[in-house]
Amino acid sequence: MRGRGDRLAASLAERELDQMLVTELVNVRYLTGFTGTNGACVCGADTRLFLTDFRYTERAAAEVEGWETITVSDDWLAGIAAHLQGRFGFEDDHVPVRLLERLKGKLADGVEPVAAGGTVEKLRRVKDEVELAAIAAASALADEVWGWSLERGLGGRSEREVARAAEARIRELDAEPSFPTIVAAGPNGALPHAEPGGREIGSGELVVFDMGAQLDGYCSDGTRTFAVGEPGEEGRAVYETAQVAQAAALAAIAAGVGGEELDRVARDVIAEAGHGDRFGHGLGHGVGLEVHEAPRVSPRSDDVLESGEVVTIEPGVYLPGKLGVRIEDLVVVAEDGCRNLSSLPKDLQLVE
Amino acid sequence: MRGRGDRLAASLAERELDQMLVTELVNVRYLTGFTGTNGACVCGADTRLFLTDFRYTERAAAEVEGWETITVSDDWLAGIAAHLQGRFGFEDDHVPVRLLERLKGKLADGVEPVAAGGTVEKLRRVKDEVELAAIAAASALADEVWGWSLERGLGGRSEREVARAAEARIRELDAEPSFPTIVAAGPNGALPHAEPGGREIGSGELVVFDMGAQLDGYCSDGTRTFAVGEPGEEGRAVYETAQVAQAAALAAIAAGVGGEELDRVARDVIAEAGHGDRFGHGLGHGVGLEVHEAPRVSPRSDDVLESGEVVTIEPGVYLPGKLGVRIEDLVVVAEDGCRNLSSLPKDLQLVE
Repeated sequence: MRGRGDRLAASLAERELDQMLVTELVNVRYLTGFTGTNGACVCGADTRLFLTDFRYTERAAAEVEGWETITVSDDWLAGIAAHLQGRFGFEDDHVPVRLLERLKGKLADGVEPVAAGGTVEKLRRVKDEVELAAIAAASALADEVWGWSLERGLGGRSEREVARAAEARIRELDAEPSFPTIVAAGPNGALPHAEPGGREIGSGELVVFDMGAQLDGYCSDGTRTFAVGEPGEEGRAVYETAQVAQAAALAAIAAGVGGEELDRVARDVIAEAGHGDRFGHGLGHGVGLEVHEAPRVSPRSDDVLESGEVVTIEPGVYLPGKLGVRIEDLVVVAEDGCRNLSSLPKDLQLVE
Repeated sequence: MRGRGDRLAASLAERELDQMLVTELVNVRYLTGFTGTNGACVCGADTRLFLTDFRYTERAAAEVEGWETITVSDDWLAGIAAHLQGRFGFEDDHVPVRLLERLKGKLADGVEPVAAGGTVEKLRRVKDEVELAAIAAASALADEVWGWSLERGLGGRSEREVARAAEARIRELDAEPSFPTIVAAGPNGALPHAEPGGREIGSGELVVFDMGAQLDGYCSDGTRTFAVGEPGEEGRAVYETAQVAQAAALAAIAAGVGGEELDRVARDVIAEAGHGDRFGHGLGHGVGLEVHEAPRVSPRSDDVLESGEVVTIEPGVYLPGKLGVRIEDLVVVAEDGCRNLSSLPKDLQLVE
């Protein structure tokens, strides 16, 4: 992970920063490999310091490479302040107001905090090979759990029962759910953020099944919509719209394409089918150590895709009170296309 | 939950605040009952506003009582700012620097943010009957899972296997682990924050088993140390020291007792047994919607216990490289004593 600290150090000059203080744990993990619950990094041209407390000294020795580990024994903020110099960036999008005030009280003369949130998140957008392998493994594990779930059938079970069983299976496979699994059948499928409930999944219903696994820190995220028996004409038509929209977006991905532009490709297909106001969320988002991270693929995105970024492509069509369809793949952006990490079929599957 | 908003409003006068803006979700839940992932409260003498976005309008209608729900449709911070007046408190221990800066840019003239973190946390210290019932139910559920775990035996299984099985059982019982379960055997028991590993639990080892359940939002927290077969003289002696220390602390609890004073009762017993430097954490902490909350029971605590607070009493003795013992109960502070929510026996149990 040495290269990550170097990339961070290199990015400081353009912001006229002498150092960067990183306190957000997922960013600390990205830079150092540390998986404990208390740690911070101080990074400068020739500085790679990792700070933690006595509880984690041993774990840091096993996990952290390329950073000098310092165990802060008493006053945590004073321990950090002692290593800060000049203009240092801090993560203003995460650091609480009170924490900054207290830290300021411990800084030496001439040491000045500068708001620099998002700096590490920006580095995290493009994944290296180790990260891509971890995400692909998480995705493959989730795909396996979909297969396992379908073998047990959806019809006649409650949404909650199906979701819980899938999560238990993810854990049996030594991973964790990367977010609470969504199983939303029939009219519940029209609520993009439905919580799985006690309602029994009925025959002829479409079931939105949104699931992800987290393995070695890295997340997957995917969705399939299944039909329990014949879903009827409207269900089939809506499914086809979502499928065509997704295929169009997948075909349009390449490095250099804007997040807003890519979102519009899918949105136009859905609008042409007469459901322009039935796709109430963005087309996708980055996935990595967090299940939602940069870049954004949505109507408000300013991001431009780069090769090596991992994003979801998840158009949805939601007919309130009736049904919903969402089809979501996880893809790696390439120079002239993408590599799809999802192995599940995309044509409508009629299941039991 | 109407009374909670009233208590918050009543507490504002002493801080010379006109309103309190509450954005920390667990505090929002405490005040309103809302369990979604985006919500905020504005509370003043005659103001009880709950703000959320379109995703949660329906859920808020089902969950939130005694607060007027406002759905913010576009700019979240502008939606909040529109309802703020005069000197309003904000949670400076949670609100990120950037969020406050952006909010400031949207405030009307004369509206002024004042750092007021911890205000709701202070209200949360003393539990009402509904909360006490929820914590007792979570504790009873965890106790059941200890019984279930011992029936399956500890010896010959890995720490991780025992911990995972217990967590799966908690979920089967429709709860969640309130924190990652700790199962630490033999020398691992000497690491108070050990993660359960692949090491097989051996005969003659002491096993620290720290577990909690979260049910209807409320947490439990407890620890027992079991012996897999005969632990030997030193193990028995250390166990007895922890047990006597805990009994002394439990006997000393009452409203009006200081957290530092109570901690010292247990610490003195451990020191007298010659292990003064082998108890490297505080005696206990409050438990409620969070598994660690106010008050603190530790050498550095300024808190004074009040009737109706729920705290852990968890002395430990850790002999590096050898073994550890921790015995932890969850108790409700009463005027002249306490009510112990833990139903598990305290004498050393030799198990399989």
